[in-house]
Amino acid sequence: MTTETLIHPPVSDADALIADMGARARAAAKRMAVAPTDRKASGLRAAAAELRAREADILAANARDMAAGEANGLTSAMLDRLRLDAGRLGAIAGAVEAVAALADPVGAEIDRTSRPNGMVLSRVRVPLGVIGIIYESRPNVTADAAALGLMSGNAVILRGGSEAVHSNRAIHAALAAGLSEAELPADAVQLVPTQDRAAVGALLRAQGLVDIIIPRGGKGLVARVQDEARVPVLAHLDGICHLYIDAAADPDRAVALAVNAKMRRTGICGATETILIDRAYADPRAIIDALIGAGCEVRGDSAIAALSPHVTPASANDWDCEYLDAIVSIAAVDGVEGALAHIDAHSSRHTDAIVTEDRDAAERFLAEVDSAIVMHNASTQFADGGEFGLGAEIGIATGRLHARGPVALEGLTTYKWLVRGSGQTRP
Amino acid sequence: MTTETLIHPPVSDADALIADMGARARAAAKRMAVAPTDRKASGLRAAAAELRAREADILAANARDMAAGEANGLTSAMLDRLRLDAGRLGAIAGAVEAVAALADPVGAEIDRTSRPNGMVLSRVRVPLGVIGIIYESRPNVTADAAALGLMSGNAVILRGGSEAVHSNRAIHAALAAGLSEAELPADAVQLVPTQDRAAVGALLRAQGLVDIIIPRGGKGLVARVQDEARVPVLAHLDGICHLYIDAAADPDRAVALAVNAKMRRTGICGATETILIDRAYADPRAIIDALIGAGCEVRGDSAIAALSPHVTPASANDWDCEYLDAIVSIAAVDGVEGALAHIDAHSSRHTDAIVTEDRDAAERFLAEVDSAIVMHNASTQFADGGEFGLGAEIGIATGRLHARGPVALEGLTTYKWLVRGSGQTRP
Repeated sequence: MTTETLIHPPVSDADALIADMGARARAAAKRMAVAPTDRKASGLRAAAAELRAREADILAANARDMAAGEANGLTSAMLDRLRLDAGRLGAIAGAVEAVAALADPVGAEIDRTSRPNGMVLSRVRVPLGVIGIIYESRPNVTADAAALGLMSGNAVILRGGSEAVHSNRAIHAALAAGLSEAELPADAVQLVPTQDRAAVGALLRAQGLVDIIIPRGGKGLVARVQDEARVPVLAHLDGICHLYIDAAADPDRAVALAVNAKMRRTGICGATETILIDRAYADPRAIIDALIGAGCEVRGDSAIAALSPHVTPASANDWDCEYLDAIVSIAAVDGVEGALAHIDAHSSRHTDAIVTEDRDAAERFLAEVDSAIVMHNASTQFADGGEFGLGAEIGIATGRLHARGPVALEGLTTYKWLVRGSGQTRP
Repeated sequence: MTTETLIHPPVSDADALIADMGARARAAAKRMAVAPTDRKASGLRAAAAELRAREADILAANARDMAAGEANGLTSAMLDRLRLDAGRLGAIAGAVEAVAALADPVGAEIDRTSRPNGMVLSRVRVPLGVIGIIYESRPNVTADAAALGLMSGNAVILRGGSEAVHSNRAIHAALAAGLSEAELPADAVQLVPTQDRAAVGALLRAQGLVDIIIPRGGKGLVARVQDEARVPVLAHLDGICHLYIDAAADPDRAVALAVNAKMRRTGICGATETILIDRAYADPRAIIDALIGAGCEVRGDSAIAALSPHVTPASANDWDCEYLDAIVSIAAVDGVEGALAHIDAHSSRHTDAIVTEDRDAAERFLAEVDSAIVMHNASTQFADGGEFGLGAEIGIATGRLHARGPVALEGLTTYKWLVRGSGQTRP
């Protein structure tokens, strides 16, 4: 561990710590902003090589975290998220290499116009600057988030969960070493050296030092970050996704999409939580039976509950619930109009889909649903940067500003205007 | 005055007032989001016609404001900003018609890709939603800001200064009437009906009700808004713009650009406040003499002060001062490197320019200056949405997220992802 990022002032003052880290990140960000693509890619490939070379160190550090986690009574699900082995570490290194191969958004020209006076105006992408990433127990986020932030020309300040503190330090040291080998500033990736929660508060208030905060983790973390932050936050709190089965849906597609959207993986944010079925749809029972057959608990409104003895009655809360489990709520609605009204009232604006063979109904749904992602005849489980062809994702945003839906490299940039003249003065 | 927007609950509770206005704005925004371009344009043209038809009413309302302003001892500059006459009102109506003629960004496709599984993904522009606009004594902002917000498919909540309360109400009534004539919701343009400052605080905290706040006015207003807001803010606080004269600058261009950038209009945010001159530049005296000859006070560092008895010594504060007046600070710097260091330390990230015939120096400056607008051989006074060909502007943003530099219709939109499939389920 040879990098200067491990030298820190005393942690008695969280604000002073974050101010110091922020100032060093800002200086590093200036260098990253003008680093050529091949230099950034080299740095990430070197970081990936360091991750592989340090496998024994990293797995030993992870073993310490696992032992502490077991002693502290973490659930088996939490321990599984925390656990690294050679295969998982190889996958982490591979993901860093994959980011190194992505197209660099920095410097890309968004548009260009000429003015009648001869001035040429263009907008070009530039990095956001300093990105704060706050996450929980998955140590892979340390490498994933750093790789995306760095490839887009930013500096990142990472603050991982206390369960993974040794794993994160070992992974961070590998990343910083890789950057140094490529003659990039190791300060471009810094790990908050304390688990003191005051440091998180200081990071969330670091206006001017940190340009954006990205929380990666459960709802409790995201809610706290959104509530406390004075720095802009890119995140989603809930993924209450809807699948609407229109009267004109193809029955086989409807069943296949309902089962996939709900049951493929129930714990991801793009999993459907509520299915809306047009009262005019011919065979809602087939959908209900397929879900129950796939092991899903079905909670229905009175019209749906009347269709099957295996459906339990939904309560009012069910329509605003992100189960993240093998449970679905189903409501009968009056056509697209009814679906739009239900979604407007209950969607978390993440991903909502319509199943129909009626093109007009589909286009109306696509136009009027105000969510980050709106789909026609596709599973909501596709809501993912990799599936969208972005190569990776740092998260999905449901806010309205800057970036919406899956966010990858482009979402971590902004733009500036360049004006090229030949002496023009303004009349 | 026939619109429902003038019926309000008691103003005893600013939060309740803003909650009610916000809910009505949200409902109106949904209708505006799907309003076709010609409907929005018709509404704005009808609003412009109402402004012209109500000239007598509006000028009478303005006369009340002017009388109150005189009684309250407003400065002549403030009274001039407040004053309307037939010509100025005609210009306001014309500006609304000009916005109606701009290209509608809503529905525009940003990009489109196909995935190997046959899904087609596109990003299309959608309105931001509800925009809060807080401004001072210029009544034209009521119409300008509303026109830009509405044409981009949003609902706007306007809160003007108390000096212009009668003028704003009369202009707002004309706008709402125009919208109603085009069968657009009058609630899409609402005017906060009280001058109670608590209503501003409530608007700034209205997360979930208001999507973005745009302050229009002096530094005091913008600073208060940026400090108090929990809703995202699009604005600039300072316009400390720099003009750097490189050793390789053409002498005639250098003089012309320095005088224009500083002196064309000294009170606008794009006016140059500091000129940096390369120590290797041949004739700095010609620049100083031209500025002094144009009536500008010149404050210089020791190297500049030594060149002319008419230069007064600059203090440390001068390098961070937005004079908005016929005063300029001038520093000698060591080439592009020195200019970049000075700008990095003192720029407000609004607009900075280089004057040079050396293409490499220009490109380095354009690449490395991290400001919303960076110019080569052009006057910083061009920093304006109209001059950039945007047709208008709601303001200039110096933040890093969402929109940067001049903001017009596109900056008042966001996007959503549309996914068109044919039954794809995720493996």
